[in-house]
Amino acid sequence: MITLSSDFGTPYPAAMKGVLLRRTDARLVDVAHDFPRQDVRATAFWLREVLPYFPAATHLVVVDPGVGTDRAAIVVEAAGHTFVAPDNGVVLPAVRELAGDDFDVYDVAYDDVASNTFHGRDVFAPAAADVHDAPAVTAIERVTPAAEFVDLTFPTATVDGDRATGEVLVVDDFGNAVTNVPGEFLDGADRVAVNGESAPVARAYAAVDHGDRLVTVGSHGNVEFAVNRGRGDDAFGLAVGDAVTVERR
Amino acid sequence: MITLSSDFGTPYPAAMKGVLLRRTDARLVDVAHDFPRQDVRATAFWLREVLPYFPAATHLVVVDPGVGTDRAAIVVEAAGHTFVAPDNGVVLPAVRELAGDDFDVYDVAYDDVASNTFHGRDVFAPAAADVHDAPAVTAIERVTPAAEFVDLTFPTATVDGDRATGEVLVVDDFGNAVTNVPGEFLDGADRVAVNGESAPVARAYAAVDHGDRLVTVGSHGNVEFAVNRGRGDDAFGLAVGDAVTVERR
Amino acid sequence: MITLSSDFGTPYPAAMKGVLLRRTDARLVDVAHDFPRQDVRATAFWLREVLPYFPAATHLVVVDPGVGTDRAAIVVEAAGHTFVAPDNGVVLPAVRELAGDDFDVYDVAYDDVASNTFHGRDVFAPAAADVHDAPAVTAIERVTPAAEFVDLTFPTATVDGDRATGEVLVVDDFGNAVTNVPGEFLDGADRVAVNGESAPVARAYAAVDHGDRLVTVGSHGNVEFAVNRGRGDDAFGLAVGDAVTVERR
Repeated sequence: MITLSSDFGTPYPAAMKGVLLRRTDARLVDVAHDFPRQDVRATAFWLREVLPYFPAATHLVVVDPGVGTDRAAIVVEAAGHTFVAPDNGVVLPAVRELAGDDFDVYDVAYDDVASNTFHGRDVFAPAAADVHDAPAVTAIERVTPAAEFVDLTFPTATVDGDRATGEVLVVDDFGNAVTNVPGEFLDGADRVAVNGESAPVARAYAAVDHGDRLVTVGSHGNVEFAVNRGRGDDAFGLAVGDAVTVERR
Repeated sequence: MITLSSDFGTPYPAAMKGVLLRRTDARLVDVAHDFPRQDVRATAFWLREVLPYFPAATHLVVVDPGVGTDRAAIVVEAAGHTFVAPDNGVVLPAVRELAGDDFDVYDVAYDDVASNTFHGRDVFAPAAADVHDAPAVTAIERVTPAAEFVDLTFPTATVDGDRATGEVLVVDDFGNAVTNVPGEFLDGADRVAVNGESAPVARAYAAVDHGDRLVTVGSHGNVEFAVNRGRGDDAFGLAVGDAVTVERR
Repeated sequence: MITLSSDFGTPYPAAMKGVLLRRTDARLVDVAHDFPRQDVRATAFWLREVLPYFPAATHLVVVDPGVGTDRAAIVVEAAGHTFVAPDNGVVLPAVRELAGDDFDVYDVAYDDVASNTFHGRDVFAPAAADVHDAPAVTAIERVTPAAEFVDLTFPTATVDGDRATGEVLVVDDFGNAVTNVPGEFLDGADRVAVNGESAPVARAYAAVDHGDRLVTVGSHGNVEFAVNRGRGDDAFGLAVGDAVTVERR
């Protein structure tokens, strides 16, 4: 099984599918091709949320603002999964979610490729097909252990008694502002102050009236700021990277 | 075969796919993941239009504004198809299109799920995989006959001689305003009055000039208001739920 | 393998999938369903870019502004690939990319179809399934050699020494304005004048600063006007069909 993730929109992902299907009979599963354009960090967050739910698979990930520069192409093996991606950290949070620090990184050599602008088609898709079908990644000549790789981690929140300090990691498609504050911080709370402003804690969007704000624990296990059938980012005035203080009181 | 329908946008549907593929080897077929957000009624309309074209399959449907409340999770068996969805009526029009009133509804018990906000991943996808692979839905312990279920029906139009009175059920992606007036009402008509205003009847969008309005019979068999290469809803000033009177004259 | 391409948005493509899966066990691969609406020319360009990367397959293509008129339905055999599409030229550039002038065109007879507005579901999907499963297209009774077909070609650029004159064929999803000027025209150039205005030539988007303009060779091998992490069409003031003169100096 090969999963496909990119920020290519339409119709470039189809060229990757064609290249894959010329080389392998693997099942192809689209994760998404509308990850925030050239946003390595947001994509890394979402991949950490969704890829660990898959059975062992080859994950082809191409969000690649450095295409055509000298950035490396890498393969990462972690907990039975194999990731093929540009060396910009985009898969590292998913890798660590699956395997902690127990993973191996390889370089994929490439040169003389058909384009400098579409390595998804010309470098990563062929590598993913080969990795999927090979008995071991090291059986592929152009794949060798990496001396180094670009890492990417998310900041952790600080919880000090009734006060948590963190930041908005991402805003999802529904407008929910997802933080790095662990969901357990809300256990037993009815209301909290978000950057000083009071808001109800609820276990479900529909537990508050249509259009009302709530603080809840999202499917990712983190505190998020939401609006029942509306956008939490607008209602709370929060964007990615904004600092948030949540106080139980 | 398991079909997937949701209003999740990106990238949450991929988590459902991961959960499914951990449990089953079934073929997965995306129907759509951009159904109108939390709009049970519009989704129900579209599912009625597309799901009956499939061969017998398990249909996983998650448009679920009540997630995290006490709404039930249901399985419906109808004409060889099996639907897995929240108990909000979203699959009932498709069910009746396939099987009339000859269908069975079951409850899927769940508790202690991983999230209160993403039952697509934590309740419905596991249920769909289990239902797909089980010899019979009743072979699954947590699936039991339902005492009741939430129904959903669309209003029917009234045809009185040369006058039909109905409403706009939905506006499609092209801007066509789809009504509940049966297409046969237009048989042999060259022009009709739509809420008093005259418009040509045509069998194809391209039968009128680029940008011109027309009244036609859509692929769903109902009267719709359209514009050749434009938006019928704007041109006719109609939105979902609006009453429409169509007169042959 | 059957690939699916359309401008249907949501959720009509699912009805085509249902019809296909009722008739065939073929693997289905979505190319895209958000091709520019009813834009035969732009779709033809993109199909030429992506379909040749696929292994031999049946390609179902439905961008069909003439649906319901007397336009023919055709099958084209080219280099082991089979295309099923309306007779409006949409597949011809891909066909010629694969096979030059060595291809065969067939008509698919149809009448008494369920709708005049959705031949993707009622004419083309059944034909694609039948063509995929038939030992030869001519084994299908309603498929017969075509006496004529609608052609579609793109203009070629003129290169005269240090001056190339062409046009913008398409603007992609990233905002890159793709021309018909062959990429080799830029070989060795550091700067060019685009319609009289100087711009740097770069081999990768990231070779210029964030937000800066560049002239590069896209994955399609043509000269394109781009902005690193921005939209080239806006920055260069160019739209589809606009004439462009590129001068090395």
